[in-house]
Amino acid sequence: MTPEHKTVARRSLLLKDCPPAIAEEVMARGTVRHVARGATILTPESRADDVFVVLSGWAKLFRITARGGEAVIDVLGPSRSLGEVAALRGERYLVHAEAVTDCALLKIPATAFNGLLGSCTEIRAALLASTLHHLEALVGQVEALKVCSGAQRAAQFILSLVPDTCGRACTVRLPYDKALIAGQVGLSPESLSRAFRRLRAEGVRVHRREVRVDDVPALAAYAEFREAAWA
Amino acid sequence: MTPEHKTVARRSLLLKDCPPAIAEEVMARGTVRHVARGATILTPESRADDVFVVLSGWAKLFRITARGGEAVIDVLGPSRSLGEVAALRGERYLVHAEAVTDCALLKIPATAFNGLLGSCTEIRAALLASTLHHLEALVGQVEALKVCSGAQRAAQFILSLVPDTCGRACTVRLPYDKALIAGQVGLSPESLSRAFRRLRAEGVRVHRREVRVDDVPALAAYAEFREAAWA
Repeated sequence: MTPEHKTVARRSLLLKDCPPAIAEEVMARGTVRHVARGATILTPESRADDVFVVLSGWAKLFRITARGGEAVIDVLGPSRSLGEVAALRGERYLVHAEAVTDCALLKIPATAFNGLLGSCTEIRAALLASTLHHLEALVGQVEALKVCSGAQRAAQFILSLVPDTCGRACTVRLPYDKALIAGQVGLSPESLSRAFRRLRAEGVRVHRREVRVDDVPALAAYAEFREAAWA
Repeated sequence: MTPEHKTVARRSLLLKDCPPAIAEEVMARGTVRHVARGATILTPESRADDVFVVLSGWAKLFRITARGGEAVIDVLGPSRSLGEVAALRGERYLVHAEAVTDCALLKIPATAFNGLLGSCTEIRAALLASTLHHLEALVGQVEALKVCSGAQRAAQFILSLVPDTCGRACTVRLPYDKALIAGQVGLSPESLSRAFRRLRAEGVRVHRREVRVDDVPALAAYAEFREAAWA
């Protein structure tokens, strides 16, 4: 692992509250795996033998519907982890995961992770924090899908990209293509385009991957934005 | 607890894989709480001091949206548990819970539960099973909300009520009012009525709370029904 990789891994929910010596041990037992865009990371057919932390790039979690379509459950960027609950439980993974861009992943064998878990309350707490985060994110998604319009969900997604440090006006860059963003917020690609057009009235201009937001607090009020359901 | 209550509690994910002596101990440390229809069970403002198991009746989990609306996250019937992840973590609850009908609940103090957890691998496994179930149910909901039509989601809800033992044709009873079912499947009440009308073509007749399904396997194929996202 490079020093940059270590910094990213230490920001993950799994490692951020670990004592440094234990975090080093976990990272030492892991290996860095480089995955090309479009490659499979894990599938629900396989037993959860590994826990992953995204070190760079984007990974998409999805399920295959009964008719063979794809339902995007989440898209994970650097410092996000996947597979931990299933790995701990010794079950199969819940979802498919695939690299959206070229990715570097920290792959930690479940046995190593579970071994530490037995002896270390910090790792156990970290795992539960991570689980709670997954649950919260899913509860937030369910809420948004049930009560927010497509334009509000598109606005929530844009707001999830805005850094805390930005001022009232802000320009952000869409991190991956619009078809995937559409799937993530539960819209067809055509409906996402309509949602972006609808957001012009709220001071949002989308040009290719560049998004200009004139008034971040006003957009947050419009979107009923509370927490990062989409990020 | 009555013998019936004990039977229901033992079917919960929290207790079903526990050795009988430990399940008895957990139940002995709990108290039965009777809650009238409409009463609050828990709120996200309060620290999660208790884990609950529904013994009879229905409880609704929901969040309050930024504009003061209500987003139904789930509706729990007998043997379903709530609050376990937050209680274990010593965090606040994730959601509001309210009795939809008069309810009996087994209330287990988190301290008692966590005490057993430290010493008992079965309880730890049970808690993780329960967490995984919550995650799976939410992932299933997110999938259905993103890729299924309103009529398909209404059909999925009806199918979640059909017992395994039923034949090709089946009559089931809606367990609570249509406004709540609408919120649960992410539709307005008017859209739910339209969805039920749309399902007549699939051999479904809804009359008040009675639902007649002519061909359960055909409806399951129409709905892309896989697992109980709504139950």
